[in-house]
Amino acid sequence: MIDTILEFLVQKNYKQLKEFLAEENPADIAEVISELDENDAILVFRLLSKDTGAEVFAYMDKDTHIGILENINEDEITYLMNNLFMDDTVDILSELPANYVTRVLQNVSEARRKLINHFLQYPEDTAGSIMTIEYMDLKKDMTVKEAIERVKKYAIKKETVNNCYIIDDKRMLLGEVTLKDLILATDDTIINDIMNEDVIVGNTLTSTDEISLMFTKYDILSMPIVDTESRLVGIITVDDVMELIEEETSEEMGRMTGASPLENPYMKTGVFKLARSRIIWLFVLMIGATISQLIIGKYEDFLTAYVVLAGFLPMLMDTSGNTGAQTATMIVRGLGINEIKLSDMPKVLFKEMRVALIIGLTLALANFFKLWLLQGIDPVIAGAVSLTLICTITIAITAGSSLPFLARKLKLDPAVAVSPMITTIVDAFAVLLYFTIAKALLGI
Amino acid sequence: MIDTILEFLVQKNYKQLKEFLAEENPADIAEVISELDENDAILVFRLLSKDTGAEVFAYMDKDTHIGILENINEDEITYLMNNLFMDDTVDILSELPANYVTRVLQNVSEARRKLINHFLQYPEDTAGSIMTIEYMDLKKDMTVKEAIERVKKYAIKKETVNNCYIIDDKRMLLGEVTLKDLILATDDTIINDIMNEDVIVGNTLTSTDEISLMFTKYDILSMPIVDTESRLVGIITVDDVMELIEEETSEEMGRMTGASPLENPYMKTGVFKLARSRIIWLFVLMIGATISQLIIGKYEDFLTAYVVLAGFLPMLMDTSGNTGAQTATMIVRGLGINEIKLSDMPKVLFKEMRVALIIGLTLALANFFKLWLLQGIDPVIAGAVSLTLICTITIAITAGSSLPFLARKLKLDPAVAVSPMITTIVDAFAVLLYFTIAKALLGI
Repeated sequence: MIDTILEFLVQKNYKQLKEFLAEENPADIAEVISELDENDAILVFRLLSKDTGAEVFAYMDKDTHIGILENINEDEITYLMNNLFMDDTVDILSELPANYVTRVLQNVSEARRKLINHFLQYPEDTAGSIMTIEYMDLKKDMTVKEAIERVKKYAIKKETVNNCYIIDDKRMLLGEVTLKDLILATDDTIINDIMNEDVIVGNTLTSTDEISLMFTKYDILSMPIVDTESRLVGIITVDDVMELIEEETSEEMGRMTGASPLENPYMKTGVFKLARSRIIWLFVLMIGATISQLIIGKYEDFLTAYVVLAGFLPMLMDTSGNTGAQTATMIVRGLGINEIKLSDMPKVLFKEMRVALIIGLTLALANFFKLWLLQGIDPVIAGAVSLTLICTITIAITAGSSLPFLARKLKLDPAVAVSPMITTIVDAFAVLLYFTIAKALLGI
Repeated sequence: MIDTILEFLVQKNYKQLKEFLAEENPADIAEVISELDENDAILVFRLLSKDTGAEVFAYMDKDTHIGILENINEDEITYLMNNLFMDDTVDILSELPANYVTRVLQNVSEARRKLINHFLQYPEDTAGSIMTIEYMDLKKDMTVKEAIERVKKYAIKKETVNNCYIIDDKRMLLGEVTLKDLILATDDTIINDIMNEDVIVGNTLTSTDEISLMFTKYDILSMPIVDTESRLVGIITVDDVMELIEEETSEEMGRMTGASPLENPYMKTGVFKLARSRIIWLFVLMIGATISQLIIGKYEDFLTAYVVLAGFLPMLMDTSGNTGAQTATMIVRGLGINEIKLSDMPKVLFKEMRVALIIGLTLALANFFKLWLLQGIDPVIAGAVSLTLICTITIAITAGSSLPFLARKLKLDPAVAVSPMITTIVDAFAVLLYFTIAKALLGI
């Protein structure tokens, strides 16, 4: 698609380019615009019909937003902002540098500016910060005919009308009807008689994590959000939740390896920002490894006498590190999607102890015979290595399964740097146990 | 909620329990039933209205399905199967042991049995295996009034009517209208004039990964699926895609640590299955660590003379392992959600080389001064350790950023055991470089 567009641009064939763009999907157009240079990008953006323009704008990333905002005039900004849904507006503004936000806000009506400012105040990662106000509301004493008329009148300005919300005069949420319910009912049915009162509802301060869990659990397409006084203030739709889940998963996966979340997509993030996002935990854990170094230092004389022991350090440390990381990842993920609950901790620990025993025994036996029979290593040394292996695997699995629970209990994020942290902790134990066991078995 | 239910059960107050259940959400009921013992579970299940029963059944996990199927009679099975949507039926059957599948299939009509068997044949992880056939189809020459009448007539049996699909006599997909489009149009409008012809469409053999990427990219709620001859054969709805994404993410996160996917949720998986899912890669990588052992063995004499060098092995191996795992996770995830494309490989590698330089230099300098000034280590040794650190970080980042691309190019899963594998590979290099550099610097 980008090749076709570039060809039209080279030929300056704007008329045909405009027709071509009119046929394309807004998400695709946004992707292409982000790959064009600034002049071409703005040219293509201006060739879009005004409504499509706003839609395409909502799909763009931060850098492209800045590029476009720098090049369009005040009227265009006003039009754009009036045609974006509130959730997209807030999403875009909360990422932009302050001077752009000011420029944008100067070009919207005072009422809308107030509203936007109100939305920008919801803490990040709460339902309030991602909800939109363009929902369809109905009254409970309306007939279905009246309701459908209202839908017809306002649908165009609403993010979705598949779900309509019934509120009273104080905007308290009473229930929900779907567009399907309205179609299936007879014209003179009263909304009150067909509305569903058991609505799954969120609060402006509900965490976005919890919101996505509710969407997945209850298979919902749109969720009403109420304020602290139970008044309907917005809705969250499933497309926003999908985007949210994607972002949150990327961040969680990064955090588990000790990388902090990136503001922009990877390909748009500079080398220094990438390095900065990863270096902090690497540094902390590098310093943490000093403990292992000091332990080995204590055993220097012993190690000089039995230098062959050093060769098994990588295997011992890698295997226990891998085992711990596996366990931790499984538990963190399980906690994250509510498949494992905080109260499951004793059950999980008991389960993992047995898993540790199976894995530890199997690997240790395999390792013992491999070292003794295949590599011809002294069976006492092979035994020391294998015995250490059982112990470190048990420690690794115990750490991997308990630390995420503890973090969650302390209201910390169980994901943060969990795999490398466990590796570092378990390594220190591995080294200590290794030399203790070896000394004992060798009778020194 | 489970406490209330247990209380009703103890009191044998089934009438009130039935009323209580009628008010609850099917997803919640399914969760509770899975926690009850078999007798209570079947009792509660039978207290549900038949329609709710089918819905609740669709939300249950495999073990609970088996428990219920073992205890209900043939008529109940028939009713259940006739009231499940096709995607849920296939989903449930594809997980059940063969004897249960046979029993279920014996109790459905021949036509439905044929259909189910047809669906069961789609390869796992393709659109065909998760789609449903209960979509709403319209003809292009219908008026809106006729279309709405058709929707009214059949809506109750359809998984969604928010999107309706227009097909010709050969069932070729022509376009799509939303229920909102129908509501907004006048009665005598012809469907052909309002239908959207640029539908985002999938094929029965499209991978589920790709399907979920398309849903996220284009913000769609329902996607028509066509067969190899472009005939409409089913739809996939966004709720199924969300479930899919959750499952796929869990599997991917597990696989990255070398754990194979579990069939059942963690809490329902036995100790032996858990151990088996993790042990294979642990074993392979334990054997892989033999390389590091052999390298250290080659330098035994050198190490005996400079046994202090052994103390830095954990730090060198951990830091490079952590760095590699961080990079690999970021790239695997980026490739997975299409944020990074296969063609980006040169750009990514160039970027990561620079990141490696920054991280390597910073950590190496910090480490050098820490060892020399704080720990009073001989500066030559400190230098050897730090120089090795730069090299291994560079190797780790190069491996972490290139291996996922290579795996993808070879049509392998970039996620499989990527973090521990990189740790093992980089460890071998780390050990080799460490001794080579130390020998050179110490002038031996």
